[in-house]
Amino acid sequence: MKVLVVGANGQIGKQLVKQLQNSDEHTVRALVRKEEQAEELKKKGVDAVIANLEGSKNSIVKAAKGCEAVIFTAGSGGSTGPDKTLLVDLDGAIKTAEAAEEAGAERFVIVSALQANNRANWSEKIRHYYAAKHYADRMLETSNLNYTIVRPGGLLNEVGTGKVKIAENLEERGSVSREDVAKVVVASLTEENTFKRGFDLVSGDTAVEEALKTLS
Amino acid sequence: MKVLVVGANGQIGKQLVKQLQNSDEHTVRALVRKEEQAEELKKKGVDAVIANLEGSKNSIVKAAKGCEAVIFTAGSGGSTGPDKTLLVDLDGAIKTAEAAEEAGAERFVIVSALQANNRANWSEKIRHYYAAKHYADRMLETSNLNYTIVRPGGLLNEVGTGKVKIAENLEERGSVSREDVAKVVVASLTEENTFKRGFDLVSGDTAVEEALKTLS
Repeated sequence: MKVLVVGANGQIGKQLVKQLQNSDEHTVRALVRKEEQAEELKKKGVDAVIANLEGSKNSIVKAAKGCEAVIFTAGSGGSTGPDKTLLVDLDGAIKTAEAAEEAGAERFVIVSALQANNRANWSEKIRHYYAAKHYADRMLETSNLNYTIVRPGGLLNEVGTGKVKIAENLEERGSVSREDVAKVVVASLTEENTFKRGFDLVSGDTAVEEALKTLS
Repeated sequence: MKVLVVGANGQIGKQLVKQLQNSDEHTVRALVRKEEQAEELKKKGVDAVIANLEGSKNSIVKAAKGCEAVIFTAGSGGSTGPDKTLLVDLDGAIKTAEAAEEAGAERFVIVSALQANNRANWSEKIRHYYAAKHYADRMLETSNLNYTIVRPGGLLNEVGTGKVKIAENLEERGSVSREDVAKVVVASLTEENTFKRGFDLVSGDTAVEEALKTLS
């Protein structure tokens, strides 16, 4: 599949681009916000396009044209205000989902956050962040896309193990490396068992492909 | 109908409580955040309950029990940060809609904002506010409630005229008194023509009941 990665300059985004570039099954197009980020990617041989998630939907439709799947892993990050959380993590995500639909890219994977689906467990300090993720996921569920919602635990920068724990609702909290999150997202693209559903993800003992296949 | 007004201490909320209290058709229960607000209302003979829209859904379910309709007109206001906009105007609204459903209050009217449905027309300075209203409205549309979304123009404190202009999509911008917004909301409660739809509202030349009846 030709896969558009939205948020390709982020920490998970960079892992996704690398893994998709090395994949035999897929080709990648990276969507980034800045000219210099696109240039950097093009130097590495990556098809890169520029669009602002706070801008017009049309520019995202254009970016998604010719792609069969879209991965959304953009976020405003911790250094901007909650207004940007609303405009990027929520409105940017749903604008991208609408754009994917218009462009005919039916497969859509979003990187959410563990507990985003459980209002009672939202971390007090960043409740607004969880609320933004919560409604992005819920809106996506009402779309016509073939979506998957991946809810990883605390994100680590360590090297991935390729071993994870996955379930519709994990009882425990936990963490997972960004490299393994990217592995799960890429493997989900074609794993029918993940279509039209969401699941929790932390590091574990099961190989990614097997974990996804046994997800019930 | 017994009607729960959520945001009863707000400027539109106060008008709603007064109009419902004077109505022959309806009785009112006011939901407010603070003990002293409830006391103030009780002194005026108003059934008042306390719940925090950032708190548990259960307290709102309890407040809605026995009501047939819920009006949502709460907002975090301009003096708090965008994090509260997300948690009150969006999550508070949808939590209230979920609570209404659980409590069996099937009729739900929300006070939205003109252009909240048109991303391209969101005011630059408070885009996050429009985004919060936008997704509250869209989530409500996916609920099982019998909803109405009222999108008034710029809100004025002047005395109402009882004359308005209403359409699914008004071409012009405009303003309207809070008293007339409340009149439209109360009249909408039982006007089948407003069921499961949204409409724009500014001041105009047509009596409220007639304007609602001719809404097409």
